[in-house]
Amino acid sequence: MIVELLSIGDELLYGATLDTNAAYLARRLDGLGLDIRYKSTAPDDMDLLVEAITLAMRRAQVVIATGGLGPTDDDITKKAICKVFKRNLVFHENVADDIQKRFAARGIKMPAINQNQALLPQGARFLSNKHGSALGIVIEEHGRFFCAMPGVPHEMRLMTDEQLTPILAQLVGNQVIIRHRLRTVGIMESSLAEKIRPILHLAEGVSLAYLPSYRGVDLAIKGIGTVEQEVRAGVTLLADGIRRMVSDYIYTEDERDLEEVVGQLLVERKLTLATAESCTGGKLSGRITRAAGSSRYFLGGVVAYANEIKINQLGVPPEMIEEFGAVSAETAQTMAEGARKLTGASLGVAITGIAGPAGETDEKPVGTIYIALSIGDKSFAKHFIMGADREINRERSVTAALNLIRKELLGIE
Amino acid sequence: MIVELLSIGDELLYGATLDTNAAYLARRLDGLGLDIRYKSTAPDDMDLLVEAITLAMRRAQVVIATGGLGPTDDDITKKAICKVFKRNLVFHENVADDIQKRFAARGIKMPAINQNQALLPQGARFLSNKHGSALGIVIEEHGRFFCAMPGVPHEMRLMTDEQLTPILAQLVGNQVIIRHRLRTVGIMESSLAEKIRPILHLAEGVSLAYLPSYRGVDLAIKGIGTVEQEVRAGVTLLADGIRRMVSDYIYTEDERDLEEVVGQLLVERKLTLATAESCTGGKLSGRITRAAGSSRYFLGGVVAYANEIKINQLGVPPEMIEEFGAVSAETAQTMAEGARKLTGASLGVAITGIAGPAGETDEKPVGTIYIALSIGDKSFAKHFIMGADREINRERSVTAALNLIRKELLGIE
Repeated sequence: MIVELLSIGDELLYGATLDTNAAYLARRLDGLGLDIRYKSTAPDDMDLLVEAITLAMRRAQVVIATGGLGPTDDDITKKAICKVFKRNLVFHENVADDIQKRFAARGIKMPAINQNQALLPQGARFLSNKHGSALGIVIEEHGRFFCAMPGVPHEMRLMTDEQLTPILAQLVGNQVIIRHRLRTVGIMESSLAEKIRPILHLAEGVSLAYLPSYRGVDLAIKGIGTVEQEVRAGVTLLADGIRRMVSDYIYTEDERDLEEVVGQLLVERKLTLATAESCTGGKLSGRITRAAGSSRYFLGGVVAYANEIKINQLGVPPEMIEEFGAVSAETAQTMAEGARKLTGASLGVAITGIAGPAGETDEKPVGTIYIALSIGDKSFAKHFIMGADREINRERSVTAALNLIRKELLGIE
Repeated sequence: MIVELLSIGDELLYGATLDTNAAYLARRLDGLGLDIRYKSTAPDDMDLLVEAITLAMRRAQVVIATGGLGPTDDDITKKAICKVFKRNLVFHENVADDIQKRFAARGIKMPAINQNQALLPQGARFLSNKHGSALGIVIEEHGRFFCAMPGVPHEMRLMTDEQLTPILAQLVGNQVIIRHRLRTVGIMESSLAEKIRPILHLAEGVSLAYLPSYRGVDLAIKGIGTVEQEVRAGVTLLADGIRRMVSDYIYTEDERDLEEVVGQLLVERKLTLATAESCTGGKLSGRITRAAGSSRYFLGGVVAYANEIKINQLGVPPEMIEEFGAVSAETAQTMAEGARKLTGASLGVAITGIAGPAGETDEKPVGTIYIALSIGDKSFAKHFIMGADREINRERSVTAALNLIRKELLGIE
C-alpha cells in the first residue's frame, strides 16, 4: 500500500524545526511493510494545506499527517480536514471534560483556549492521547485511509505505537519486505562502496543503501518479494558477503547505537569507564549516559576545559602543557590516566583538541584531535585530523573515542 | 517566487536520517524573501524521483534539490535530471583531475568509483565544492530555476552560502518579508498563547507562529507587504506588545541559543562557571561548550555519575546521600558548591535526578530533577518534575539549568 507522510507547520517549512516525526513514522510504517513513497510538508496556510491533503489522498492509499492540532490560532489542520472531506466540527463535551481533568491533575488551571481541542470533525474515529490534549483523527473514505496526529513528538509516538500501528497492520497485504542493517564506524562511504561493490551482484531483488552520518555509515539492505524464504535468503547472502569484506568496521547489526555496544562490551568484561574531556566539553560522557543502565559501567568524569583543571584534577604536569601543549598526545594520555586515578575506573578515555573556530597554530590546525586510552598497564594516544566545523569536530571526536574503546576491547588492529 | 525544496534519498524517506538540509535551506531562502511553499522527499528510485522533480518544476518557480549526487550506485539524481530535462551526461576531464588532487592532498588514493563524479549533465552550470567531490548543478529553463546540490550537510551549506544565495538574490523581486523572533524559555506554549492572545489583533498583515521544542518556545513574527516601512511598523508593534506581556521568559530576540546568552551574561559580569552533573552525564557542559569562545567563562566540571564521585570529588557527605538520597535538594546544592570549590569558579551549577527508565521510588517518580546554583555566599536548589522519556528529561534539565543561571544573573523572580 502506497503511503504519504504529510508534516504540517510553518516551523517545518521555514526551517526552525527538524522533522523528527516523519522520520519516526517512516520507520514504524516501513516495518509494517507499507510502501512509503511520498513525504511532504505543508505550511499553516489553509489553501496550501488543503492542496497538500488533496494531492496526498489522490496519489497515496494511506495518508498520515502530523501537526497543527494544537489549541492556538495557527493550528488549522482540523479545519483543513473539514474542507477536504466536507465535514463539520462538532463539540465533544466528554473530551472537554477529559482535558480539564488532565490540567487539574497537574495542579494547573486549564487555559480556556484548550477548549478548542474538543471540537472535532464529524464522522471520524479518534485516537486518544495520554500525554496531551489533542486527539488523533482517523477518516476512512472510498477505500483510502487518512489519519492526523498531534505534532508533539512523544504524544505522536505513543499514539502511533499503541493505536495507529495495530489499525494499519490490518490494512497491509502480504508483500514481504525484509531489511537488514549493518552499522559501521571508522570508514568513509566511498571506501566502503569500493570494498563492497564486487559482491553487490550476489543477490537479486536485494538493494543496498549507504546512510552516512557523523556517527558512522549504516549499510541498509532491503529485499522485496512475495516468498519470504527467498527474500530472506537474498538478504542473508548479501549481509554475509558484506560482513566478510568489512567486518572490523561493523559495530552492530541491530538497532543499538555505538555507545550501547561499547557499554555492553564493558559489562561483559566487567570493566568500568571514566572520561576526561577538553574540547568535547562533556559530550562524550553525555553520549555514554544516553544509554539507560550506563551506571553499571560508567563512573563519571572530568570536564577539563581550563588548563588549571587538567593540572589540578587530572594531574597533567604544567611542564607537559608548556612543552607539548594542552592539545598533544602526551596531555591526552595523562588525562586518560588521571581520569582513572580519580575515579578508580578500569578504563580511562580522554579527548583534547582544537574544535575551532579559534585556537589553531601552524602545526596544529583546527580539527586536530588527540584521543587517549588508559587500560590495564598501558596508555596510548591517537592523532586525528577532523574538519573545519566546531560542532561536527566535537561530534566526530566523540564517535572516534567510542570506536577506539570498541577496537581496544575487541583486539581489532 | 514560489520555491520547492526536494530532498532525495531512501534514508530520508524511510526514517533513518533527519532532513537537516531542507531546514538549513529553508532558513537561508526565507531570508532572501523567497516563498517556500513546498517541501518534499523522494527516494532513490528513478521513476519516483523523475515524478517528484517534474511535479516540483510544474508548481514552483525555483526548485532546490539535495542528495543523490554521491559516487555510489544508489546515487541517481544526475540520471534523473538528464531524464527530466532531456540532457546527456558528459565527462569533464578537469573535474576528474580536481577530484584526484583532492584525495592526493589528504594522502588517500582515490577510489576509482569517484571518477563517476566527473560525469555531469550537458548545458548546466556548476557550483564548485570545497569540501567534497560532488559538484552542484544548476539548470535554467523556460523561466524556471533548478539546482541540485550534494546531500552532505557541510558541503551543501558552504555551496549555498557562497554560490547559490548570490544567484537567488538576483532572481528575487521586491516583495518585503520581515521576520522577528522572540525566544522564550520556562513557559508552555498554551500559557504563552493565552497571555499573548489579547494583543494579537494589534497589527494587520502580521502573523505569529509558536515554535515549541524541548529547549523553549520561539515566537516567530512574520510581516508581509510591499512597503517596507509599513511592514516593519506592524512587526515592531506586535513584538513590543509581546515583550510587555512575557518579558521575563524572553531570553533573546536574535539568533543566539540560550547557552550563548548565558555565556554573554557571565562574560559581562566577569563570572566563571563550573558544572556538576549526575543524570545529565555531561550534557550540560557539552551544551555550554557548544558556544565558541566558552573558554572565557567555563572552567570545567565533574560528571558524578557514581555516588563515590559525588562523595570523593564533590564533597557530598555519605550521610547526606543516606538521609536525603542522591536525588535531593541537599545533594544538588552540595554538588554545586563542590564544583565551585574544586575549580575556583564564581558560579557552580549542579543537576541530579531520575532520568529514567529505571530508578524511581514512591516519593521520587521518573522525571524528578533537582537543579542547584551556588553563587556569592548563597546556594539554593529547585525541584522540577519532568516527564517519562529519558533523553527528553535530560534535555529539559539542561535547559532548565541554563535558565536558572539566566534568571539568577538578571534578578528575575
